[in-house]
Amino acid sequence: MGRVYLDHNATAPLRPEARAAMIDAMDIVGNPSSVHTEGRAAKAVIERARGQVAAALGADGADIIFTSGATEAAALACAGRGLHGSAVEHDAVKAWVSSDLQVDAKGHVAVTDPAQSALQLANSETGIIQTLPEGLEVSDMTQAFGKLPLAFNWSGCKMALVSAHKLGGPKGIGALVVRRGTDLAAQIKGGGQEMGRRSGTENVIGIAGFGAAAEAAARDLANGVWDRIEEFRKILENTIAADANETIFVGKGASRLPNTSCLIAPGWKGETQVMTMDLSGFAISAGSACSSGKVRASGVLQAMGYSDAEAGSAIRISLGPDTSQDDITRFAETWLKHWKKHRARAA
Amino acid sequence: MGRVYLDHNATAPLRPEARAAMIDAMDIVGNPSSVHTEGRAAKAVIERARGQVAAALGADGADIIFTSGATEAAALACAGRGLHGSAVEHDAVKAWVSSDLQVDAKGHVAVTDPAQSALQLANSETGIIQTLPEGLEVSDMTQAFGKLPLAFNWSGCKMALVSAHKLGGPKGIGALVVRRGTDLAAQIKGGGQEMGRRSGTENVIGIAGFGAAAEAAARDLANGVWDRIEEFRKILENTIAADANETIFVGKGASRLPNTSCLIAPGWKGETQVMTMDLSGFAISAGSACSSGKVRASGVLQAMGYSDAEAGSAIRISLGPDTSQDDITRFAETWLKHWKKHRARAA
Repeated sequence: MGRVYLDHNATAPLRPEARAAMIDAMDIVGNPSSVHTEGRAAKAVIERARGQVAAALGADGADIIFTSGATEAAALACAGRGLHGSAVEHDAVKAWVSSDLQVDAKGHVAVTDPAQSALQLANSETGIIQTLPEGLEVSDMTQAFGKLPLAFNWSGCKMALVSAHKLGGPKGIGALVVRRGTDLAAQIKGGGQEMGRRSGTENVIGIAGFGAAAEAAARDLANGVWDRIEEFRKILENTIAADANETIFVGKGASRLPNTSCLIAPGWKGETQVMTMDLSGFAISAGSACSSGKVRASGVLQAMGYSDAEAGSAIRISLGPDTSQDDITRFAETWLKHWKKHRARAA
Repeated sequence: MGRVYLDHNATAPLRPEARAAMIDAMDIVGNPSSVHTEGRAAKAVIERARGQVAAALGADGADIIFTSGATEAAALACAGRGLHGSAVEHDAVKAWVSSDLQVDAKGHVAVTDPAQSALQLANSETGIIQTLPEGLEVSDMTQAFGKLPLAFNWSGCKMALVSAHKLGGPKGIGALVVRRGTDLAAQIKGGGQEMGRRSGTENVIGIAGFGAAAEAAARDLANGVWDRIEEFRKILENTIAADANETIFVGKGASRLPNTSCLIAPGWKGETQVMTMDLSGFAISAGSACSSGKVRASGVLQAMGYSDAEAGSAIRISLGPDTSQDDITRFAETWLKHWKKHRARAA
């Protein structure tokens, strides 16, 4: 049997629409900054994708500044600005903010000064969704984009970070979305591309893939694909809870991304679970993938009040549009089999 | 007849090897930071490409830090460090250095303090090659990489900027090459990728294309492809000089990239030449392409002592491995035809 990929929050498989758009863009020879025919053709690819991303994100009229990903977008939005944030933000945001906002047991963050704060829309590890306060300066919408109906223009925030590879586009391309008229100094300077906010010859192929993926993701969302995914998650959690009743499902009952299940199997290390399930043919994760292979107890769970031992026994299963009910059933059965073995050894 | 692309210094067409490697990489699902099988497969793609780039660049044992391009690499190498540079550097370097080094009439730069200076190896507009002083801090090797035999490890410099799309890789990926053991603070922070020097999920598809393109470019170089290109340039310049004898070929006689011809047709605006030739089916440029469509008199030529009028009448023709002798003959004939028309109108 083939492998089952249940780590969509780390990165999603490339959508066929993105693949096709990227292969088409490979034939575009020019530099988008060149004034000749070939240059203008490359520019047109970028501008089409910019429109697709804006439409999918409900950000028509906002500035979409293409970057090499959400991490670069976070630096562009946050560096040197003294913003407040919290311990549940992604490392790419935490690098630039003081993590002094309170996180409650449900994973919700209390923002006191929205105009000086960064707040994610959804958490990558738990899927927990935040209510964004009006006037928020920066929101990391990376995990929410494509999985939740959302509109930047109605979000009340000034800037948002998004990434292509979380919704089926290629890795290495993302955007900072900025309400028009916002002052923003470039950090990567030179040729003056991206309206002077981000220099460097554009990743034309990646941008084409981002645009096509965003459009396809918006279509999936409208077609109810994520309702089906949420049903599968329910099956997953119910199946596991029925047999392993001390399992904690983080954020259950709270508003969560429809695809994300963060579960704590007390006493069974997350790292061991990931490796055991990998050998059985399932890709899942423990904590955030963005730590270059390091596995460590989740700071997100610790911020919610879980003990180090609990946080160290967590895994994340994240589903995607290509996940089948059979994938989920097999995962739950296999996980339970190993859990029973672990329990037997530990007893 | 098809169009003829003679703007390889702005960006080169994607090599078939890069295209194939990128399409292969599209099937790699994982995030390179994930510890599971899919993650390790993605990591392997990156490490293979890192080896290919290092080998092509003569940089085995140096750190190859993948970035979104040479522009980002320039910021990483130069920002906030008070380096000296000159007016012939690319805007991406000039943004961070004080342009106080002298440029002579042949386009050569006098470096006084190598350890505190940035110096390009070859100029994008004129192709003029610099002799890098031992102990140089930063060299922009973007235009030279793939066109000249070169070895970072023997260059005597500490850091070098390179870009994939100038040698037939995709746009939006490049690298900062750093002598091992060099201290370097990250500017894009978060997940700690690229040995902590550059965070963000890696552009796996782009990196795969960069590696394959670098390998193919090194093979072309070894096979004498650029000797043939240099022959074609000679034909181009001789054909034009024979009929339009007031034409100035910038850097002729100096050591130049084999593919680059920067010519000044006094009194005929570069911008007009570019548009006229574009309508006739040829893609060339006036000055650097990296200015978001702006066309302006070349600062590089002004620094060499050319008048504003001369600098404003310059075009760059840059050949590549796919350029045929017929392309060159047709270009020269067409250019001369328009030049004669221009002369007749101006008379």
